[in-house]
Amino acid sequence: MKTAEDYLESLRQLKLRVYSFGKRIENPADFQLTKPSQNAVAMTYTLAQDPEYSDLMTATSHLTGEKVNRFAHIPQNSEDLVKKVKMLRLLGQKTGVCFQRCVGMDALIALSSVTYEMDQKLGTQYYARFKEYLKYVQHNDLVCNGAMTDVKGDRGLRPSQQKDSDLYLRVVEKRGDGIIVRGAKAHQTGAINSHELIVMPTLAMNDEEKDYAVSFSTPSDAEGILHIVGRQASDTRRLEDGEIDLGNTKYAGHEALVVFDDVFVPWDRVFMCGEHEFSGALVERFASYHRQNYGGCKTGLGDVLIGAAATIAEYNGVQKASHVRDKITEMIHLNETMYACGLACSYEGYKLPSGTYLVDPLLANITKQNVTRFPFEMARLAIDIAGGLIGTLPSEKDLKHPVVGKYMEKYLKGVAGIPTQDRARMVRLIENMVLSVPYLVESMHGAGSPQAQRVVILRQADLEAKMELSKALSGIGKSH
Amino acid sequence: MKTAEDYLESLRQLKLRVYSFGKRIENPADFQLTKPSQNAVAMTYTLAQDPEYSDLMTATSHLTGEKVNRFAHIPQNSEDLVKKVKMLRLLGQKTGVCFQRCVGMDALIALSSVTYEMDQKLGTQYYARFKEYLKYVQHNDLVCNGAMTDVKGDRGLRPSQQKDSDLYLRVVEKRGDGIIVRGAKAHQTGAINSHELIVMPTLAMNDEEKDYAVSFSTPSDAEGILHIVGRQASDTRRLEDGEIDLGNTKYAGHEALVVFDDVFVPWDRVFMCGEHEFSGALVERFASYHRQNYGGCKTGLGDVLIGAAATIAEYNGVQKASHVRDKITEMIHLNETMYACGLACSYEGYKLPSGTYLVDPLLANITKQNVTRFPFEMARLAIDIAGGLIGTLPSEKDLKHPVVGKYMEKYLKGVAGIPTQDRARMVRLIENMVLSVPYLVESMHGAGSPQAQRVVILRQADLEAKMELSKALSGIGKSH
Amino acid sequence: MKTAEDYLESLRQLKLRVYSFGKRIENPADFQLTKPSQNAVAMTYTLAQDPEYSDLMTATSHLTGEKVNRFAHIPQNSEDLVKKVKMLRLLGQKTGVCFQRCVGMDALIALSSVTYEMDQKLGTQYYARFKEYLKYVQHNDLVCNGAMTDVKGDRGLRPSQQKDSDLYLRVVEKRGDGIIVRGAKAHQTGAINSHELIVMPTLAMNDEEKDYAVSFSTPSDAEGILHIVGRQASDTRRLEDGEIDLGNTKYAGHEALVVFDDVFVPWDRVFMCGEHEFSGALVERFASYHRQNYGGCKTGLGDVLIGAAATIAEYNGVQKASHVRDKITEMIHLNETMYACGLACSYEGYKLPSGTYLVDPLLANITKQNVTRFPFEMARLAIDIAGGLIGTLPSEKDLKHPVVGKYMEKYLKGVAGIPTQDRARMVRLIENMVLSVPYLVESMHGAGSPQAQRVVILRQADLEAKMELSKALSGIGKSH
Amino acid sequence: MKTAEDYLESLRQLKLRVYSFGKRIENPADFQLTKPSQNAVAMTYTLAQDPEYSDLMTATSHLTGEKVNRFAHIPQNSEDLVKKVKMLRLLGQKTGVCFQRCVGMDALIALSSVTYEMDQKLGTQYYARFKEYLKYVQHNDLVCNGAMTDVKGDRGLRPSQQKDSDLYLRVVEKRGDGIIVRGAKAHQTGAINSHELIVMPTLAMNDEEKDYAVSFSTPSDAEGILHIVGRQASDTRRLEDGEIDLGNTKYAGHEALVVFDDVFVPWDRVFMCGEHEFSGALVERFASYHRQNYGGCKTGLGDVLIGAAATIAEYNGVQKASHVRDKITEMIHLNETMYACGLACSYEGYKLPSGTYLVDPLLANITKQNVTRFPFEMARLAIDIAGGLIGTLPSEKDLKHPVVGKYMEKYLKGVAGIPTQDRARMVRLIENMVLSVPYLVESMHGAGSPQAQRVVILRQADLEAKMELSKALSGIGKSH
Repeated sequence: MKTAEDYLESLRQLKLRVYSFGKRIENPADFQLTKPSQNAVAMTYTLAQDPEYSDLMTATSHLTGEKVNRFAHIPQNSEDLVKKVKMLRLLGQKTGVCFQRCVGMDALIALSSVTYEMDQKLGTQYYARFKEYLKYVQHNDLVCNGAMTDVKGDRGLRPSQQKDSDLYLRVVEKRGDGIIVRGAKAHQTGAINSHELIVMPTLAMNDEEKDYAVSFSTPSDAEGILHIVGRQASDTRRLEDGEIDLGNTKYAGHEALVVFDDVFVPWDRVFMCGEHEFSGALVERFASYHRQNYGGCKTGLGDVLIGAAATIAEYNGVQKASHVRDKITEMIHLNETMYACGLACSYEGYKLPSGTYLVDPLLANITKQNVTRFPFEMARLAIDIAGGLIGTLPSEKDLKHPVVGKYMEKYLKGVAGIPTQDRARMVRLIENMVLSVPYLVESMHGAGSPQAQRVVILRQADLEAKMELSKALSGIGKSH
Repeated sequence: MKTAEDYLESLRQLKLRVYSFGKRIENPADFQLTKPSQNAVAMTYTLAQDPEYSDLMTATSHLTGEKVNRFAHIPQNSEDLVKKVKMLRLLGQKTGVCFQRCVGMDALIALSSVTYEMDQKLGTQYYARFKEYLKYVQHNDLVCNGAMTDVKGDRGLRPSQQKDSDLYLRVVEKRGDGIIVRGAKAHQTGAINSHELIVMPTLAMNDEEKDYAVSFSTPSDAEGILHIVGRQASDTRRLEDGEIDLGNTKYAGHEALVVFDDVFVPWDRVFMCGEHEFSGALVERFASYHRQNYGGCKTGLGDVLIGAAATIAEYNGVQKASHVRDKITEMIHLNETMYACGLACSYEGYKLPSGTYLVDPLLANITKQNVTRFPFEMARLAIDIAGGLIGTLPSEKDLKHPVVGKYMEKYLKGVAGIPTQDRARMVRLIENMVLSVPYLVESMHGAGSPQAQRVVILRQADLEAKMELSKALSGIGKSH
Repeated sequence: MKTAEDYLESLRQLKLRVYSFGKRIENPADFQLTKPSQNAVAMTYTLAQDPEYSDLMTATSHLTGEKVNRFAHIPQNSEDLVKKVKMLRLLGQKTGVCFQRCVGMDALIALSSVTYEMDQKLGTQYYARFKEYLKYVQHNDLVCNGAMTDVKGDRGLRPSQQKDSDLYLRVVEKRGDGIIVRGAKAHQTGAINSHELIVMPTLAMNDEEKDYAVSFSTPSDAEGILHIVGRQASDTRRLEDGEIDLGNTKYAGHEALVVFDDVFVPWDRVFMCGEHEFSGALVERFASYHRQNYGGCKTGLGDVLIGAAATIAEYNGVQKASHVRDKITEMIHLNETMYACGLACSYEGYKLPSGTYLVDPLLANITKQNVTRFPFEMARLAIDIAGGLIGTLPSEKDLKHPVVGKYMEKYLKGVAGIPTQDRARMVRLIENMVLSVPYLVESMHGAGSPQAQRVVILRQADLEAKMELSKALSGIGKSH
Repeated sequence: MKTAEDYLESLRQLKLRVYSFGKRIENPADFQLTKPSQNAVAMTYTLAQDPEYSDLMTATSHLTGEKVNRFAHIPQNSEDLVKKVKMLRLLGQKTGVCFQRCVGMDALIALSSVTYEMDQKLGTQYYARFKEYLKYVQHNDLVCNGAMTDVKGDRGLRPSQQKDSDLYLRVVEKRGDGIIVRGAKAHQTGAINSHELIVMPTLAMNDEEKDYAVSFSTPSDAEGILHIVGRQASDTRRLEDGEIDLGNTKYAGHEALVVFDDVFVPWDRVFMCGEHEFSGALVERFASYHRQNYGGCKTGLGDVLIGAAATIAEYNGVQKASHVRDKITEMIHLNETMYACGLACSYEGYKLPSGTYLVDPLLANITKQNVTRFPFEMARLAIDIAGGLIGTLPSEKDLKHPVVGKYMEKYLKGVAGIPTQDRARMVRLIENMVLSVPYLVESMHGAGSPQAQRVVILRQADLEAKMELSKALSGIGKSH
């Protein structure tokens, strides 16, 4: 396994075409805006080297017996699924942001079973290819970006009905040595910190949409691939001097629009090409694994936010107020509810024909559905506890200014004994989390928007069986 | 193990002193008001005999190797804890009410570890006594009633400060052959359907409250014990002819105030007597196990309610309306969230020195806290879906009346093909659940009122560790 | 204006055909089950005689200048609308239940403008008829029952598509002297306490449904009318001896299914007959007025429930606990929010061509929408504060029993100085409200189920104007 | 009354000492960061000149009969209170942010009655001084900043107990010509856009805290006053080229910490100086008026957000999806509920001895309490509807870049016919509102944090009267 340093160095080797703020970024690996997002990914390497965390952070490859980073591991039992959630909570606690590496993990896991089942049913050879690819990823401890969400154009129309046929990524040419693909994947978390992109279809395709039923992997710097970095609230604070105003002084996330402008993919990297009847399974499996995650990662962020709320309460001298204690209790309650769901869907996992373990799909969707709600209430409570300074604190440059710095030192003091600067840091950390993409927007839309989960929840709930229960108890169906 | 018939017969052997509606009930086992609550307990016997459910409903005694009803089993691993939750959901589905037998189960489980630890620390002999007692319960497949909640008088005063010293149950005399106890236990679920009562203190007692630090078991018909049956919304419908208006045609719960008017308990049934420093542990362990349960039993009731809502929607012809589907989805979501919490606290259970497994206390309290909320929202949604008839449907006697029955048949018809009577039955079942003690009041107060859980949640959450996370990320504690 | 005694006497003169529990009730005015509901209606007379309340309870007829009960008054300005809400809150406080008389009031008010507008547009003579009828009602201080909700059969089908054409009330014959109508109206609040029934269509009818576009009034004991009383949770406690277990010792509501089995209505009581294009307006006007009400009446009930929660907290010795105070604060907050909405829609009322004032329709629907939610949360909080006794308290007969009464007296004592019986009374009052039709089911379905309001809210909100605001601020539509 | 141009010009005349980002801002009136906040204030002048809005935006001075901007008007009847709310909603709609001028308005209104009552009780001369000052403000159409919130240090200590006595603003010297004050006021909305500062105490002071019981006005550029501008999420986008990424292209808010470093105030500008027994009244009156406002201004912002959500739904092609329509309906419902509360507390206003009208204090606190909740849910729903792009959209510079701009144009297209840029603008507007101080943080903390309202709500609710209602209905207090 790589060290964090190795990882950061390896990013420098990539020839990515990255654009941000209207400019081509020459050395993306040193781009100050996305550097904190690299740090977050790097933490997945750092902790894997730490004996204290190795049980969570690493696993033994079922293919090679090699010790591998868990982000490259295919769950072989329920315990693996549980450790996945616990690992993600740990990383959320240590970074306070999205550490980006789980999308590719889930793409690998989903492909491990779907390629197997395709081969069983259709006589294709995808599973063997996939295993070779997995060994490559495991051995080289690579970061993969799972690329699913198409840009979609008019959401009221199917892929093939769009005015522009490229609004869902598709195969535009099949050649002897591989395929040419065109399209774009939106909301690509961590794209420019990834060695590999793993592309999957965004929804279940039908018979007329075979060209859209395509899955493959590609180096993230392959010819024709272009990354346009998204911008987020307060992102340019990273370009300023100083660190207090960042709130989270070292870590951040990033998102990108990834364009595939006629990219060539050799056959040995193609995992689905036209088998539309399996596209739905791939989407659903991936979604289930990915929805599971949010019971881990976002509860890690929740721990940070709860801790920050408790700390600022202490700095303000209100930590014993009953309403403050009650609000912190409520934050804990909500956070642990999400975690409990993440654990439950994992423990209730079961074995698929390929040997891969699948989370319980109903409970995984329940998990994510709660994550589309509770972090918003937790943010609301944190804003409540933090006080008005969350919207009015002057910049750290003012704090360090010879004239106004003294005034701020005097007047923004909380309880005696706590440096004003520490109070400022804590306010900024809360601001960083409650007016932000990683905690709120990702909790809403990551792994699918709420309505997507509701559709699955209703379908998975076996309503008929529940109706039978009610009929039995009310005496319906007895002679009458 | 007993059959349901054996169980019902065994109740007839008890010499209980039962009062209800101002009368001494001569043959409590045949008392029409509480008969449906016997049926609910009997289901714990019926399903244990059913091969389809034996994995959930039975276990192997760790003391004797005997096959025993799971309600008399001490969890020896996490799987036992999980099966406990799943068994309770099953029973909730099959009865739609409280089946009463879990309080005694949790008393047994809590005592199994606390008596062990008392002996280890204090050199007492409680654990051996307890094991003998447990064998007796297991072998005879007895229903135990766990009696914890004292009547408490003025909640602002400690037990020893009450004007009347008996407002918390206490030892009034110690004799060579045993002890004499006095007091009363409130909210005793299933008391008159139980063979045994297992008494525990209601809170952590201090040095001056040693007489209140008492735990023991006693036959439920021992000299000096008196049961006063509580009344509940719509309970007297069970005394009417007919069954439709019952909603739940066969099952119900019951509660009683159990008075201990100087009851003698021989030493071999005494499990704590003055060791106040262990009273808190006993209360907390019991509470954790009992809070776990609500993620099982009430989700079983939730399944019935969801099924009923879906059925009445179908009978009314609105099952495809998007808002109805969305409300049913929400009910499922809330229900499964509670279940996920119940599972998670079980899977995360761990071994105590006695070998007994304990649920994760934080997650068990999270479970119950959700149960004090979600059933109310589910009831609200069910009332919404059910329509106004839930408050206006005439009685079943009207439905069967020669004159008005025809009018009702004609005018209370829903979709074609469904008998009006079936529609009435379903409306009544929903009414039975949403304006009721078992689903709403018990969800609130069973295993402790919400504030009790909040105190534990805050204490168990390791807030300090979370504060450290927030300080690390915001740069506090670094040189500055 | 009548006294309460006159009113009760007048009920005895009615020749109503009433059925309940499978029997024809010979003297409905003395029927013990519905007697408390008469008491509640009677309160509308009692308070009108009380000088303290006459400003709210009475008004001056705009037709005759006579002083009339406000329940028979047509609002002539915003202040009248506001007083309507305040009167209803007062009555809710004094009765703790539904006092039933507002449905007829709203029928009168709605007809006052729609008949006027029909005449203006179509040259009909309904308004003159209506005015005569109104004078009759005002002068004789009559209780009218507003009968809107048809039984509806299959909700997926239009009135004319139902298998049975009578599932929506309709004209089956037009004669020289009047019309013959057939059908049934469900959920008729207070029907058997009413002198008059005022029938309206249940939805906007189309060209093919002219026979269903019918509105008229009729004496409630007209030939062919039959009332089947609905049953509700715990209703038969009214047939028991004693009063404590009633919770609310004097008042209750009732509902009935009212069947119109070919009832003759003379033309001077017909207010719409085939003018389907005005049926929608009549429904919407009535609904707006009726949704307004819930910001009054149910907040009156809320006051009782808040008071009961505060009282039981005091009786239990927990009234100073911060979580209890916070829960009571929350109950107040929710209750006043509903009231504020009721006031706002009234103050923002405006004059219609007939001179009648109409509430703001958007805000009236907002009011009711909140009422479909907040009482449920208030009930939940009240159950929380009340404690477990809400589900376990024995009957009052036990309290009065020579043997067990003493035990109950001793063991169900709360704080010193408060009789145990008072504690029991307060527990029963809360039970009466939180597991009940008047507070919960009526809050949900009265004046239309939640989805009905949502349809109006979206339609009334002028979404286009809001979209323009957002475009202007984001710079859309400027040259770019 | 001034035009907007006059206003902007007048700001240039001020000699403010303003610091931001560690620098003294030489010409604050032209400071790009706070320019959009000037635009927002300027809107209060622009609309006052617009005949369409003059009824809401202007009033007739009760002192001079002069037509004045309503922001300088003292409400003389309930209608004035209502128009205040409607004016604020209008301004919220037109700016989408905080327009800052209402804090000073409420300071004037609160002082108008409290100075009168002080004089009546204590024989002081504050009211005459105040009236002169008010004429000056009205005549010159000035923007006043209401300065109440002290910096407070340790919230667990009283003003006089703080280690540093200056943590609450106080009189440090009384002179023949005036007073010298020292301290700082935090969270000063719109401070550098104001001509005047009106200082008030932050809480009810006691006998030992007379020096803190001080109220006065001062030019905002008086000697010794210093403004340190707070920074907020994404504020530096205003320093970038372009406008799309601003979301709200013209308007913003700002906050400042205002330091009073021994500022001299002549006696004719002093409105309270030591009369601590009136400090509580001043705080409460101000708070009531200011809490009223939030039912206006934030519902104006809500209108913009609802419009934006509906627009982006249309751009994405999902505006007809039932879940989207339902979410928009919910947003409307929440928004109008807040508005209804704002209206209700205004209509229910009453006359104080000075002639000033006071809002209903209970309902005003209810209003604000709802505003601490609903905007968060509305933001959550808007984020849901907006889709993932809210967190991933690249910058406008990318959109305009010759290479990547084309890709973005192609791939970020929504429905046909809508320019990609418009879709980007709408996403940015939503981002601007949902991850922001003006909509969320101000809704929480403006006019006092939620707990402040809860204390008032419980105190104002007349709990005793409600308890009496419950006793009467349950039969307590009758002979028994």
